[in-house]
Amino acid sequence: MITGKNYIGNTLSSKGSKTYTTYNPQLNIENGFSFVEAASEEIDEAVGLARTASIGFGAMSGVKKADFLNAIADEILALDELLIKTYCSETGLPEGRAIGERGRTIGQLRAFAALVKEGSWVEASIDTAIPDRTPVPKPDLRKMLIPLGPVVVFGASNFPLAYSTAGGDTAAAFAAGCPVIVKSHPMHAGTGELVASAIIKAAKKTNMPNGVFSNLNSSGIEVGSALVKHPGIKAVGFTGSIGGGRALFNLAAQREEPIPVFAEMGSVNPVVILPEAVSKRGEDLAKTYAGSITLGTGQFCTNPGLLLGIKSDALTGFITRLSEEIIKIEPSCMLHPNIIGAYETKKEKALSQNGLQVAAEIQQNVQTNYARQTVTTVEGKTFLQNTTLHQEVFGPYSIVVQCEDIAQLKEIIKNLEGQLTGTIIAEENELEAHQDITIALQNKVGRLIYNGVPTGVEVCPSMQHGGPYPASTDSRFTAVGIHSIKRWVRPISYQDWPDSLLPDALKNSNPLKISRLVNNEQTKNSL
Amino acid sequence: MITGKNYIGNTLSSKGSKTYTTYNPQLNIENGFSFVEAASEEIDEAVGLARTASIGFGAMSGVKKADFLNAIADEILALDELLIKTYCSETGLPEGRAIGERGRTIGQLRAFAALVKEGSWVEASIDTAIPDRTPVPKPDLRKMLIPLGPVVVFGASNFPLAYSTAGGDTAAAFAAGCPVIVKSHPMHAGTGELVASAIIKAAKKTNMPNGVFSNLNSSGIEVGSALVKHPGIKAVGFTGSIGGGRALFNLAAQREEPIPVFAEMGSVNPVVILPEAVSKRGEDLAKTYAGSITLGTGQFCTNPGLLLGIKSDALTGFITRLSEEIIKIEPSCMLHPNIIGAYETKKEKALSQNGLQVAAEIQQNVQTNYARQTVTTVEGKTFLQNTTLHQEVFGPYSIVVQCEDIAQLKEIIKNLEGQLTGTIIAEENELEAHQDITIALQNKVGRLIYNGVPTGVEVCPSMQHGGPYPASTDSRFTAVGIHSIKRWVRPISYQDWPDSLLPDALKNSNPLKISRLVNNEQTKNSL
Repeated sequence: MITGKNYIGNTLSSKGSKTYTTYNPQLNIENGFSFVEAASEEIDEAVGLARTASIGFGAMSGVKKADFLNAIADEILALDELLIKTYCSETGLPEGRAIGERGRTIGQLRAFAALVKEGSWVEASIDTAIPDRTPVPKPDLRKMLIPLGPVVVFGASNFPLAYSTAGGDTAAAFAAGCPVIVKSHPMHAGTGELVASAIIKAAKKTNMPNGVFSNLNSSGIEVGSALVKHPGIKAVGFTGSIGGGRALFNLAAQREEPIPVFAEMGSVNPVVILPEAVSKRGEDLAKTYAGSITLGTGQFCTNPGLLLGIKSDALTGFITRLSEEIIKIEPSCMLHPNIIGAYETKKEKALSQNGLQVAAEIQQNVQTNYARQTVTTVEGKTFLQNTTLHQEVFGPYSIVVQCEDIAQLKEIIKNLEGQLTGTIIAEENELEAHQDITIALQNKVGRLIYNGVPTGVEVCPSMQHGGPYPASTDSRFTAVGIHSIKRWVRPISYQDWPDSLLPDALKNSNPLKISRLVNNEQTKNSL
Repeated sequence: MITGKNYIGNTLSSKGSKTYTTYNPQLNIENGFSFVEAASEEIDEAVGLARTASIGFGAMSGVKKADFLNAIADEILALDELLIKTYCSETGLPEGRAIGERGRTIGQLRAFAALVKEGSWVEASIDTAIPDRTPVPKPDLRKMLIPLGPVVVFGASNFPLAYSTAGGDTAAAFAAGCPVIVKSHPMHAGTGELVASAIIKAAKKTNMPNGVFSNLNSSGIEVGSALVKHPGIKAVGFTGSIGGGRALFNLAAQREEPIPVFAEMGSVNPVVILPEAVSKRGEDLAKTYAGSITLGTGQFCTNPGLLLGIKSDALTGFITRLSEEIIKIEPSCMLHPNIIGAYETKKEKALSQNGLQVAAEIQQNVQTNYARQTVTTVEGKTFLQNTTLHQEVFGPYSIVVQCEDIAQLKEIIKNLEGQLTGTIIAEENELEAHQDITIALQNKVGRLIYNGVPTGVEVCPSMQHGGPYPASTDSRFTAVGIHSIKRWVRPISYQDWPDSLLPDALKNSNPLKISRLVNNEQTKNSL
């Protein structure tokens, strides 16, 4: 079922000459499929189809879009074992993770299906006319959200299902009414093609216009760059490194018509550990954090890469215990030789900095492509002075900063870059006594966590996944949860439009029975 | 009361050496005040104060922010005659317009006051915990909107009150909890200083932190550029030319930490006139459009600069009648010698294009700085081939394109750049028969108008003012109406946070009695 070809709309196509393979990091061998990189002609075709599809798809009813989204979920489930096996062979991740991530992906698709079927997400707003208002009559104005147009989604290395081909970005864009062109992630091109085939099957079954979806193979940066620069593309979704995300952001900003790029990028997810908590619960915390740091071989964007504590015997005890706990954990496989290569390089760079000490590092030999989890420690002053230590080491690595006092801890927080999350481990009275820490951290993050771990991103309306730069390129949006649909839509107003020709969401009779703001009152009533 | 100095927070300051004056275009003389351009030291001071003020102001209750906004409105009204006279002397606009625009400004301030006093605008969302969920417990998550931080607002040449110092951008930013630094528009620096003094008075009366507002004088691009590049600035609002807006957008995108720029820029506001309507109502339309094209000497961003019709006797009749009507209107003064200079230059450039014909132009001598309103005509094919003709001529100018048929008209719409508005003049059956025109136009605009004129931007929740580039730099936001607050805010989530330490908007008891999304149900109930 894996052909190695691109989907240009509904058509399998392989006009390019460059090919590449994926890699099984567990077995340390190449997988047996060859993928044909999309040719520039195919990029144009995919965008051309998406532009045309955009008209019908953009105006499609929520019910029909919901059918499409649910059908994608069904077709992904129908891929069954083949998908799970391919996923594992291309990522080195265990089957349980594959099944879990498939569940998350299905859940996201169905959540967006429910959202658009219900329909109130368009934020319909109606202000009725006042013809006899002086000095000028008030016109009738009605506003709702409409899709931006074709969206490019870049597959994420670390979420082959939930943030790639039919992942959160794609599901949100489809829900919005935007055709999607996926730039497949080269590390899991087979998984990508399987999911793409499920989307195409679903599109055909539910009579979606050809071009509502395309899947382009690419192992370099050319295909992605060409897509972002293409005048037919209206927005971009990306999950990955700061370097990659920023490059796309720059390309998009330099276009004749700049377009929005939502890039969810790096984060060290600082964890502040206050003195009372560490002295009361240091042992439990050490166990919990050893688990969080190594979860998924540290390959989560919410991995806790930076722990900030105040020097004390209790903190020293915590570091000792964390070190003991973390080396008890079996080393695990990283996604790809390139990923483990980057991990080793970045870790070595960190370890070579003056003043950094290794508290724990797996010493024994590990399998090829398996990561040695590592905990380091550093003095607050040294950390403040050396921003190299602030950088993310993507993998099972964390640095514990031993601050002199609360003032230094706050100073460090103020000098951090933007982050996805910030965690405070504290007794409640400590949290209350140090609200300035909360304020300082709040300025830097998209999500604040109390007495927990940043890993584990709940998919629900109240989740914010995205924070000040460089955590993401636009902190005003989230990449997770139903509100992520807002990245792909814009409001449009209709002034004095005939009722019968308005979109259903704005008609007097409220045929969709959605919640609307009518003359400043939220209601499901008709006019 | 006009000192010519900058407000650096609450302090009048004039450390710079460069000075400039404003101009009375009606009398064709310089006004008698000298304004001191902000020095780079003052820029740093203003941003430093704004950063500090940001902490307290960002967390301030809606009630207190409402007091501040209402106090600004009161203090602006208290400026009385002095403000109106200064406004007129710096713009050449009549007193009626000044009073009307002041009313709009006051109305906007009070509307934002009401919005934040009520409080539901923060989009509070609560998902309660499910501790016994398997395989993992569901945490408690709560989300709301918080301010981005210090915002720079650029005063608009054509709206000295409603889109400048205390205009829509400033009011929205204050409502959001963002300190504001205004880069005063040099053409109406006196009006700007008066309004700034009103804001400072209001800030003092309502105990706002020093630095919540600064007003910087500047006649060139240096002060604005320095502000946009300053690391302490977190967002930018601009109303003006495409060149100016794009330059700021580029600066912001090139920063180490890119920041959002909402620039509301140029638009020719296409008006499609369908055959039946023009044959039935050509005479009325001609009168109406002669008025709309010349309203405010054509200096509105929603000025109808492009009329698209299908060749017919009725259209020819409409053009004749529009020409007759428009030259009946008394020529009026433009804002500044530079503005009339740009109008003449751009008009001459348009008139020099092959195939363009002048249908009407005031021939008699007019007062210095008064604009000669002009209507031109061109064949559809010529217009399609020459994009110079698509460009805005800011002033009382409009071009009537005579299309061969509906297909050509649609082709022209598809080739237009993004616009603030698009209008369709049609009988209802024509609008219904040509829904593809609506779709084509909808792709290009932020607001669709039926049987009306684009001038007159109603301030209400259902107004969208902002469209695809280059109408604005981010079509996902509006510059007018309460939803314009969304430009200056970002969501933040709190996970498992102690109830007593949550912001009031997210507490179980709902002390603010706002509407919240609680476990997917919109409600004002407490938990």
